[in-house]
Amino acid sequence: MALFDMPLAEMRAYRPERAEPADFDAFWRSTLDQAAGHDLAAEFRPYDAALTEVEVYDASFAGWGGHRISGWFIVPKHAAGPVPCVMHYIGYGGGRGTPHDHLVWPASGRAVFVVDTRGQGATSGNNAGATADPDGGVHPQSPGFMTRGILAPEHYYYRRVFTDAVRAVDAAKSHPAVDPGRVYVSGGSQGGGITTAVAGLRGDVAAALVDVPFLTHFRRALEITNDDPYQEIVRFLKTQRNADEQVFRTLSYFDGQHFAARAACPALYSVALMDQTCPPSTVFASYNHWAHPEKSIEIYPWNGHEGGSAEHRSVQLRWLKGVGGV
Amino acid sequence: MALFDMPLAEMRAYRPERAEPADFDAFWRSTLDQAAGHDLAAEFRPYDAALTEVEVYDASFAGWGGHRISGWFIVPKHAAGPVPCVMHYIGYGGGRGTPHDHLVWPASGRAVFVVDTRGQGATSGNNAGATADPDGGVHPQSPGFMTRGILAPEHYYYRRVFTDAVRAVDAAKSHPAVDPGRVYVSGGSQGGGITTAVAGLRGDVAAALVDVPFLTHFRRALEITNDDPYQEIVRFLKTQRNADEQVFRTLSYFDGQHFAARAACPALYSVALMDQTCPPSTVFASYNHWAHPEKSIEIYPWNGHEGGSAEHRSVQLRWLKGVGGV
Amino acid sequence: MALFDMPLAEMRAYRPERAEPADFDAFWRSTLDQAAGHDLAAEFRPYDAALTEVEVYDASFAGWGGHRISGWFIVPKHAAGPVPCVMHYIGYGGGRGTPHDHLVWPASGRAVFVVDTRGQGATSGNNAGATADPDGGVHPQSPGFMTRGILAPEHYYYRRVFTDAVRAVDAAKSHPAVDPGRVYVSGGSQGGGITTAVAGLRGDVAAALVDVPFLTHFRRALEITNDDPYQEIVRFLKTQRNADEQVFRTLSYFDGQHFAARAACPALYSVALMDQTCPPSTVFASYNHWAHPEKSIEIYPWNGHEGGSAEHRSVQLRWLKGVGGV
Amino acid sequence: MALFDMPLAEMRAYRPERAEPADFDAFWRSTLDQAAGHDLAAEFRPYDAALTEVEVYDASFAGWGGHRISGWFIVPKHAAGPVPCVMHYIGYGGGRGTPHDHLVWPASGRAVFVVDTRGQGATSGNNAGATADPDGGVHPQSPGFMTRGILAPEHYYYRRVFTDAVRAVDAAKSHPAVDPGRVYVSGGSQGGGITTAVAGLRGDVAAALVDVPFLTHFRRALEITNDDPYQEIVRFLKTQRNADEQVFRTLSYFDGQHFAARAACPALYSVALMDQTCPPSTVFASYNHWAHPEKSIEIYPWNGHEGGSAEHRSVQLRWLKGVGGV
Amino acid sequence: MALFDMPLAEMRAYRPERAEPADFDAFWRSTLDQAAGHDLAAEFRPYDAALTEVEVYDASFAGWGGHRISGWFIVPKHAAGPVPCVMHYIGYGGGRGTPHDHLVWPASGRAVFVVDTRGQGATSGNNAGATADPDGGVHPQSPGFMTRGILAPEHYYYRRVFTDAVRAVDAAKSHPAVDPGRVYVSGGSQGGGITTAVAGLRGDVAAALVDVPFLTHFRRALEITNDDPYQEIVRFLKTQRNADEQVFRTLSYFDGQHFAARAACPALYSVALMDQTCPPSTVFASYNHWAHPEKSIEIYPWNGHEGGSAEHRSVQLRWLKGVGGV
Amino acid sequence: MALFDMPLAEMRAYRPERAEPADFDAFWRSTLDQAAGHDLAAEFRPYDAALTEVEVYDASFAGWGGHRISGWFIVPKHAAGPVPCVMHYIGYGGGRGTPHDHLVWPASGRAVFVVDTRGQGATSGNNAGATADPDGGVHPQSPGFMTRGILAPEHYYYRRVFTDAVRAVDAAKSHPAVDPGRVYVSGGSQGGGITTAVAGLRGDVAAALVDVPFLTHFRRALEITNDDPYQEIVRFLKTQRNADEQVFRTLSYFDGQHFAARAACPALYSVALMDQTCPPSTVFASYNHWAHPEKSIEIYPWNGHEGGSAEHRSVQLRWLKGVGGV
Repeated sequence: MALFDMPLAEMRAYRPERAEPADFDAFWRSTLDQAAGHDLAAEFRPYDAALTEVEVYDASFAGWGGHRISGWFIVPKHAAGPVPCVMHYIGYGGGRGTPHDHLVWPASGRAVFVVDTRGQGATSGNNAGATADPDGGVHPQSPGFMTRGILAPEHYYYRRVFTDAVRAVDAAKSHPAVDPGRVYVSGGSQGGGITTAVAGLRGDVAAALVDVPFLTHFRRALEITNDDPYQEIVRFLKTQRNADEQVFRTLSYFDGQHFAARAACPALYSVALMDQTCPPSTVFASYNHWAHPEKSIEIYPWNGHEGGSAEHRSVQLRWLKGVGGV
Repeated sequence: MALFDMPLAEMRAYRPERAEPADFDAFWRSTLDQAAGHDLAAEFRPYDAALTEVEVYDASFAGWGGHRISGWFIVPKHAAGPVPCVMHYIGYGGGRGTPHDHLVWPASGRAVFVVDTRGQGATSGNNAGATADPDGGVHPQSPGFMTRGILAPEHYYYRRVFTDAVRAVDAAKSHPAVDPGRVYVSGGSQGGGITTAVAGLRGDVAAALVDVPFLTHFRRALEITNDDPYQEIVRFLKTQRNADEQVFRTLSYFDGQHFAARAACPALYSVALMDQTCPPSTVFASYNHWAHPEKSIEIYPWNGHEGGSAEHRSVQLRWLKGVGGV
Repeated sequence: MALFDMPLAEMRAYRPERAEPADFDAFWRSTLDQAAGHDLAAEFRPYDAALTEVEVYDASFAGWGGHRISGWFIVPKHAAGPVPCVMHYIGYGGGRGTPHDHLVWPASGRAVFVVDTRGQGATSGNNAGATADPDGGVHPQSPGFMTRGILAPEHYYYRRVFTDAVRAVDAAKSHPAVDPGRVYVSGGSQGGGITTAVAGLRGDVAAALVDVPFLTHFRRALEITNDDPYQEIVRFLKTQRNADEQVFRTLSYFDGQHFAARAACPALYSVALMDQTCPPSTVFASYNHWAHPEKSIEIYPWNGHEGGSAEHRSVQLRWLKGVGGV
Repeated sequence: MALFDMPLAEMRAYRPERAEPADFDAFWRSTLDQAAGHDLAAEFRPYDAALTEVEVYDASFAGWGGHRISGWFIVPKHAAGPVPCVMHYIGYGGGRGTPHDHLVWPASGRAVFVVDTRGQGATSGNNAGATADPDGGVHPQSPGFMTRGILAPEHYYYRRVFTDAVRAVDAAKSHPAVDPGRVYVSGGSQGGGITTAVAGLRGDVAAALVDVPFLTHFRRALEITNDDPYQEIVRFLKTQRNADEQVFRTLSYFDGQHFAARAACPALYSVALMDQTCPPSTVFASYNHWAHPEKSIEIYPWNGHEGGSAEHRSVQLRWLKGVGGV
Repeated sequence: MALFDMPLAEMRAYRPERAEPADFDAFWRSTLDQAAGHDLAAEFRPYDAALTEVEVYDASFAGWGGHRISGWFIVPKHAAGPVPCVMHYIGYGGGRGTPHDHLVWPASGRAVFVVDTRGQGATSGNNAGATADPDGGVHPQSPGFMTRGILAPEHYYYRRVFTDAVRAVDAAKSHPAVDPGRVYVSGGSQGGGITTAVAGLRGDVAAALVDVPFLTHFRRALEITNDDPYQEIVRFLKTQRNADEQVFRTLSYFDGQHFAARAACPALYSVALMDQTCPPSTVFASYNHWAHPEKSIEIYPWNGHEGGSAEHRSVQLRWLKGVGGV
Repeated sequence: MALFDMPLAEMRAYRPERAEPADFDAFWRSTLDQAAGHDLAAEFRPYDAALTEVEVYDASFAGWGGHRISGWFIVPKHAAGPVPCVMHYIGYGGGRGTPHDHLVWPASGRAVFVVDTRGQGATSGNNAGATADPDGGVHPQSPGFMTRGILAPEHYYYRRVFTDAVRAVDAAKSHPAVDPGRVYVSGGSQGGGITTAVAGLRGDVAAALVDVPFLTHFRRALEITNDDPYQEIVRFLKTQRNADEQVFRTLSYFDGQHFAARAACPALYSVALMDQTCPPSTVFASYNHWAHPEKSIEIYPWNGHEGGSAEHRSVQLRWLKGVGGV
């Protein structure tokens, strides 16, 4: 895969104007308030994963609309006292999978809370999910989740997803094994976009691990990549030819750059220069807007959307120690 | 595209056992009864399509759940008295498009009622739709519509679609320009599947035009084709590895063969022998089960899913005359 | 499909130098004169398309070399007096198809004359044609029509096609149902290229509808797109390595820009910014050279070669009214 | 590439019924007689290929319709007296290329006469040709040469090609350097099909080298392969939906099996079991019908259409010695 | 992906004749003896993976030829006394990756020994390896490892790999944390093939976990799949046209069926019915020959080569308990 | 294929800074010295290729490490006295093939020495090789040869290949039929890269024919093309994420630009502007650094990696005459 985006030097300085809607904060305040009307009702049912060194819970809580959101909550067995907890949000199309997919953080002495993305988790090559999105939207959609409700911010799919994600932190904090002062948010691709949103919407997370984030700088992404899932929106616009303005208005409430500009915690980003799914310039746009001064970005020059993969886990483990880890 | 299905001679006689659920009729009776609880509320708003020889209406009515279903209703301008009406259901991914796409039936002196498929009509290469599917389902789904609610017949997407389609006939009949004794149902691919369902669920349609129908003989289709949209279900099963039995139970309430076996009107089918989207053996399975004795099938030996395309329109126009046309 | 051509702002002003051969007008004058040596011999045989609201004729006339060129001529049944007539030229690979494909203009009270492209109309996915190109050329060709006779303007395939198209207008005007002062030319892709040529070669057409035109600004097109049919020429040049100069000389007699620069009627263009078949900068090159001051261009920012499709029909119907419609 | 045709053992015995038209011989006799009306007018112009050990001629002669057919005629420089001559016919899309492509036979002490295929030789990846097919046919065609004139045997493209090939032998024999009793015919793919035709139409060739022959057992080929060029005919039939019977009637005059059944000389075939372009069962169908008892077939079990390539040249050189070589 | 192999019922009974070379056992005995000439020299260097609940070692030992083979050895931190150890062999192209990829077995209270495959682990999408194959072979090879040394069993790449794998068990047993009576072998795809080989070559492993195994029933695999890595051998044979017999002779010493027929421990297999990389019939051929009576096979009917993925981990964890687990 | 590299005018002047390692010459001197420790032991065994006008030898000699390197040596039969000899190096993946592939130079009165590339020649679509690379390297590699030993110049595969190629010239010169003052080096793609290296490493070759050379200006190539074989290195770097610097250090000893800058003989290059395998700017970088003033470059503007193919042979034959040919 050849390089296709700006030269690296340009990207390092790339900090495009943000066209933030005037009522961005109001929109999200009202959104979270509305969700807060539903009791969190976090549940942690012990789950037999045939593992002896960790405790596994089939967790759930009431997300947007009071809909049940599933997740795995996994704690190291031999911990003495509350441990830090890593919130883990999932990449596009995937679900929480099995507990066996999420053992790195527990092996490092931390808890992990893996949060399902509503409606997703039923696509080949990804892990199964267990959470519905009962809200089908009020207009047609292109297959996929990117265009569900895209004609109005109130109806947009990611309004519900981001709200679920924000409330998942409350669910994690509600568990006695978790040290509420050391909750981290993390995720790659869509999970990176969600991570950015949660970091921007809550003042109380201790750090963010953002890998090759999606849902950022939409217009540029739509114009420079041929790859899904950004292309789901292009396909929508190809057919719904007059929806253009309305769609970009909606997206302006969900752009990772705006959340980054509000982030109040340290962040470790990663970016891959041959990533056609989440083009590197859009990642740098988010990173360069990140408000908290303690931040760094790991560059994988020859990788595509897989970015640093498992190898980046080591970088994160080391970085977290410096930030206030175990 | 090479031949890939059974030899033609075998297909002509192919009439597989139907594994129909015992409560098939009860399920559909209760479904339609439940829908009947909502007033039909058919509306026909005149629409300026800049055409002078037809009258165009932006039509809508209350489908399943009382949700508004959109469509185009187009009548020849110079008709004297009520005319026959062709119900037209749409192929997968498409919407009602523009009135200009639907002028053949009006040019033949008939009305046409083009029915949106809820949620669809926002995909590149297909016409735009204007109808939502507000019902997002109660579990994850694979992108596309094939797996929305697929874990239970009550929640399955096509329960809502077929019900909309049945009620669309009522909407058409309610218009004074339509001769209620000469309502035909028609469609290709997904539209052919819907056509079969409506013919099986109502005793009062005068004829059915079924082209390369989808949604028929699911298990065989899933096993012999690599093509979407059947593959959406395969992708779902790849990830939701234990859902197999539940999925096939659901599908057994929606198989075109069971509707065909209840059909009480003449039918003209078409089939294409190189069709990998709706394999010819599954089309013959439906055709061979069609209950009404007056039926014929047009075979396009060298075509794929495009089947007879516009050329088949001529065959239909001639056939309809014999059946009781204008 | 990502954007791949110039930025829109640049394209709006893009009006490249035209390298027109000195004898361009002489070439075409002599070409049309030579064709005029054959009697037009227009024929309109009534055709039973099983339609009641239009009259359909299987039309033909003598094109270049006196070869018979087929077409459909369709008139609204209920017209009182002569009606305007839309000439419709076909996209690459397609033929006139069936009358049922061409009912929009009749439904708007206009006649339509659909002109076959000689030799074409026998390719999967397009409508069937009924017209031969008996002239096989005097040197090898790459499969397709783009390189038939490409080593000399006298032998080039499109010399014959453009001449056929020019004479088709005469055929249309010869029919009593047509108002000769209101003949419009129209077409998309190859049909758009032919439309431009006819508008440039005749002073008497009333308006031109040019969609995503092909056959324009050849060298740039060959250099920036990977798509057929422009690539047919590249494949030819790959093998006939020394034919380069000769080929571009031939093409200079057929470039849409030169015809546009001679156009004496209003025009409505459409262009799609993600069109890799007919790159948008080549469309703007033609549009910006269009000589008549009454012109406008509809931009489809997220579409590929499908452009505005049926939705653009509405735009055309409205525009035609303003220009001197029904 | 997996095996996709019959098991080898079955193919070895595969000798399908031949549905030969009653007037097959009459058709070809009249065809060749008609061509004989044109003087052969063979020309051999010395050509400077910067080679010192061979003599190269830019050859030509009057083929079907008196059209000039080009070729290379190359003789070893140091030959004493007339030498055998190998006629070489070209694969689909290619032309005679350069003399440097054809030095094996001269290096073995034989002359070679490389015959252009009219109209071909302008396609990427193949060698350039220098011969036109001025006869464009009397109906539309699908891009490529397979469907040019396919609606009637009189007009079919290969009638002209086979006639050219038959007359090329006369041209070769007319040169004093050639021993007329030792003229061999050879070719792969389309060239193999032409070779079969020439061997079936002339009694005077000394041997045939037939590699992975094309143009044989058409119906089976169309039904079991997805590959071009056979698919050109399928694409034609997809669009020209009613031409089916007419097309197969035409092809029955050009099927390699019928020529093989008339062959009066020894033959060496080669076949590749993973060949999707010219499926092995169609090759065996030809081979098993070959009339002369001295024949053998070399099987390349793991190859596709490339067959034995250069390595098979060694097999041919050895085989020719046994048959009556240098 | 459509079904492409035998029907399931047939596969359940599919137990093809094994064409085992007479000196199969002698070959392997001499191979292992020769390797035993090198001191094992197992090393376990503590490795800082920033994990607190496991102990990680960068392990290595002398494999075939005394070459150093790398691996990860990971033990649960809180174990009391020796634990069972799972040997894990890697799929084609991958290496041992990072310790973070291998935490399931430690989380279940077992050690894991992840064994690099020599030369592999430098391919996109797979984990990095750290082990060379210094033995380049004595003839050309097709890119990939499948054909390195394939012209003679003595030189074949997998002779070295299987030997490394057998010796890895000795290395694992040499560590004091391991209970030598409870060493299991496991792996998927290539790792499944290696697992089978080790189980067949050593009498002392306690159980085998074999997922979608590769390197089994070679001839059938080469004939029915188009996918790599089996196709590497086909590509080799396409070019080295005379090597056929020699290649299959070599492969007969490495066929999983022969190792299965010698297996002396219980086994849990998994197979996927849409697996084109390791076709299901070849998996059943191995399974049906497995000699030990305690065996079962998990079938994933709708999956490709991903098989049961993480979900199958649960099945294995439960199965291992029944066999004699923790 | 669209143009994708710099504009031609820019490329003509493109002469990037060369980052040559300080010990470049020392490295190669010591390499060749080390090889010289092995006796050349050139052998020429007569080979029966069934050709009468040339003499064919199965040649071999001791290359790097004393490993036997195979080749074909072919001399015109009728030569009087020593002839010039063209060294021919092979493109990636191919081997020496059969003698029948290499008859152009003998037909022009010159000898040809075709040199196998060690390890290669077993890949579909290329000719068979007969030479091993016994040196497997000391770390993992990505499939293919590009990354074998890439972590250190001492171990890199092309160190061995270039050394073989240098010594092949000695082998050729050792044959009495060869005029040692007129040895030319030639090759395309990988063969062009090897040709450059030999020209840079020996002062005694009389001319170089360099076609679309590979192995040049690595970093730019990796960044602008998606095609193999350059992408083999990218895949390696994707997995071996920390090897970046080490890899580029190794490659700096093998970059065609450095060899070109040392070339002491005339050169004829060819380049293709649509070549995505060996991008034209990297070819110009080598050409523009070529030290000898007598040089020219043939540009194929519409071709991809096939470049001028056989047609370029004519250009070379003519050029060689001017330089001091037969």
